[in-house]
Amino acid sequence: MNGHVLRTAARADAGAMLELLRSVSIEGDTLPFRDQVDGHFIDSQWLGAAGCVLAYQNGFLLGMYRYGPNMPGRGSHIATATFIVAKAFRGRGLGRILVQDCLEQVRLSGFRAMQFNQVVATNRAALSLYRSMGFMKVGTIPDAFAHPQDGYVAAYVMYVDLCRPG
Amino acid sequence: MNGHVLRTAARADAGAMLELLRSVSIEGDTLPFRDQVDGHFIDSQWLGAAGCVLAYQNGFLLGMYRYGPNMPGRGSHIATATFIVAKAFRGRGLGRILVQDCLEQVRLSGFRAMQFNQVVATNRAALSLYRSMGFMKVGTIPDAFAHPQDGYVAAYVMYVDLCRPG
Repeated sequence: MNGHVLRTAARADAGAMLELLRSVSIEGDTLPFRDQVDGHFIDSQWLGAAGCVLAYQNGFLLGMYRYGPNMPGRGSHIATATFIVAKAFRGRGLGRILVQDCLEQVRLSGFRAMQFNQVVATNRAALSLYRSMGFMKVGTIPDAFAHPQDGYVAAYVMYVDLCRPG
Repeated sequence: MNGHVLRTAARADAGAMLELLRSVSIEGDTLPFRDQVDGHFIDSQWLGAAGCVLAYQNGFLLGMYRYGPNMPGRGSHIATATFIVAKAFRGRGLGRILVQDCLEQVRLSGFRAMQFNQVVATNRAALSLYRSMGFMKVGTIPDAFAHPQDGYVAAYVMYVDLCRPG
């Protein structure tokens, strides 16, 4: 994966972000979002996140991530994040680049750990990527995700400690 | 526990709800909320929830719960909920009454399961109550909660299936 640029999202990106998020929502097998994906959702959940970073190449939005505290107050030292890679650009290592960048940002922001609340059990690419980056499976929610082909499938809670030296 | 009334929350209850939520936030050992507990928080997170029910006795707010979907879209068939009992009224069975009422409401609303995302590992009363009502521990998040006395403690993800006959 070469020639791409990572940069913080800005309001002018909202249209491209909405298009990318809609395309992944229509695929329907990785993220829960459905009919609530609109401009307001981009504003509040993505541009309004603690951090939101985009990967562009030749003016085309390849992928993006957002992060922020997983819980308020006494749970706010653990971050959570969402990652999206456009279908045409998968399998080239961009997911790993985005997760690595996000983990750095999250660590620099002072979070102590990162947690994913809903990694769909059938999403092998994500599971394999997260495991290879030190995430552990710390929970299994039965029938958590209404998969468009497979019906109700489990989802995993995954976690990585960011304070451990090394 | 006798003489109490359960009813849906209304705007006129906001002041009493805020007072109860603040008192539990100050205790600090069960719920994550800290400085974000204000009128806007009551409006959006409690009065604005899919369901919000209060327990009153002689004009005094004893406890309350809220519920709603734990995730959007493809995860919205699982409910989550928050329960609060005023300190002076604990140990009398009100927690069980609230959870039972909530499970009925959630089942009637068509949810397929209920999930708690952060049951603090030191909160024995809640753990024991939820277990006795069929909730299973499906995940353990290390150091998830900044406990005011015990430092970082684990939290459990708990789950009950509402579709199983019986």
